Amino acid sequence: MNLLLLESGDIVKPVDATPGRAVISGRRLTHVQDVHKAEVGDTLRVGELNGEMGTATIVRLEKDELELEYTLGTPPPAPLEIMVLLALPRPKMLKRTFQTLAAMGVKRIVLMNTYRVEKSYWQTPWLKPEAIREQLILGLEQARDTVMPEVILEKRFKPFVEDRLTEMTVGMRKLVAHPVSDVECPRQLSEPAVLAIGPEGGFIPYEVERLVEFGFECVHLGQRILRVETAVPVLLSRLSS
Amino acid sequence: MNLLLLESGDIVKPVDATPGRAVISGRRLTHVQDVHKAEVGDTLRVGELNGEMGTATIVRLEKDELELEYTLGTPPPAPLEIMVLLALPRPKMLKRTFQTLAAMGVKRIVLMNTYRVEKSYWQTPWLKPEAIREQLILGLEQARDTVMPEVILEKRFKPFVEDRLTEMTVGMRKLVAHPVSDVECPRQLSEPAVLAIGPEGGFIPYEVERLVEFGFECVHLGQRILRVETAVPVLLSRLSS
Repeated sequence: MNLLLLESGDIVKPVDATPGRAVISGRRLTHVQDVHKAEVGDTLRVGELNGEMGTATIVRLEKDELELEYTLGTPPPAPLEIMVLLALPRPKMLKRTFQTLAAMGVKRIVLMNTYRVEKSYWQTPWLKPEAIREQLILGLEQARDTVMPEVILEKRFKPFVEDRLTEMTVGMRKLVAHPVSDVECPRQLSEPAVLAIGPEGGFIPYEVERLVEFGFECVHLGQRILRVETAVPVLLSRLSS
Repeated sequence: MNLLLLESGDIVKPVDATPGRAVISGRRLTHVQDVHKAEVGDTLRVGELNGEMGTATIVRLEKDELELEYTLGTPPPAPLEIMVLLALPRPKMLKRTFQTLAAMGVKRIVLMNTYRVEKSYWQTPWLKPEAIREQLILGLEQARDTVMPEVILEKRFKPFVEDRLTEMTVGMRKLVAHPVSDVECPRQLSEPAVLAIGPEGGFIPYEVERLVEFGFECVHLGQRILRVETAVPVLLSRLSS
């Protein structure tokens, strides 16, 4: 936790001309106590969810509550202008992938169904809104960002691609990572983009054809086949400016 | 497992003018049975450890043994010309990091001690040679590579940097990832390189100074602080040509 994210429910007195006050408990308090080993008078980096970042001083520290006085003024880091369309990964990977996407600054994540996504993956408790939110917050806290990404679940490939995808991606360069493509993945894009990443085992030809029909370019990363959790940071790093 | 790696102990009859024969059991057999759901007559991609890659046909499949007839002829993918010096990560991350480094084609990995590496991390069973080897093989199988990386453990920072590092890095561009640097991490290097990555909490100033003294350039990745397991693929992707 490199940034303590304050949510509206934590804020006792909003920041305006004078410092704000917030009270936190639960996971964040435990982390401040056990990892930061902080005491009254210590300062911490804080941010308001979807707002600015700044510094807080601990003014009261009790067993189950921590009170902070804080000021803001620093904008969060620039978002990554890449929307990610990801075939729903297996639950164990999903959790880490949410953290990675949030930490890298992706602000729009679509989890979609494809032929090779196991149906049971859609039943995982990690897809409950509160579970998604928790993993995204961990990613924001890690990277020092405040802006919550949006997550969209698309459980049917065909209507998603045919009816909604074009509208969601106006003005974006459209790429699909596909190991059998002849075209090397570009680097350092200068325009906003959408990147589609398949499941373990890849997209089936029909899915790639539909994406190409809707304006996607197939690109590859070389001979090596990477796991989704590695391919995501590798691709985003390569595309980002 | 996108490639079945054959080790010398598996090979019953070596490949030369005629096809080779190998017999496997254990984890790889279970994977072929449960994930590939293969049967006699099916073909699999195989490679000889540190050798070429090719195709195998299953000629016998029993409950606890699988016999293959195989031919080779395809060289493994080019290695990544980047040596990685990594402050020993926490055990849970170490395991995945070995897989990622092997999958991305890194062939020389130094795990080193630094001030912020917890001493207990050096006691993990994941550092036993057989455990390291297993994770590296998983990474090679994932990426379809055959060439086993070398792993060097350096439990004392100062003698490693002063006595051995210069000789190990002759002719390489030397980079240390350090969030407080003013210099952006370069992209697409054209020469071999060594990349030093610190522990959670980073290198201490003394460590960075020593690395700089021995020819390292400090580089950053922007404002976001990434976990080691994300920073590794992000940095390698950015530096690779």
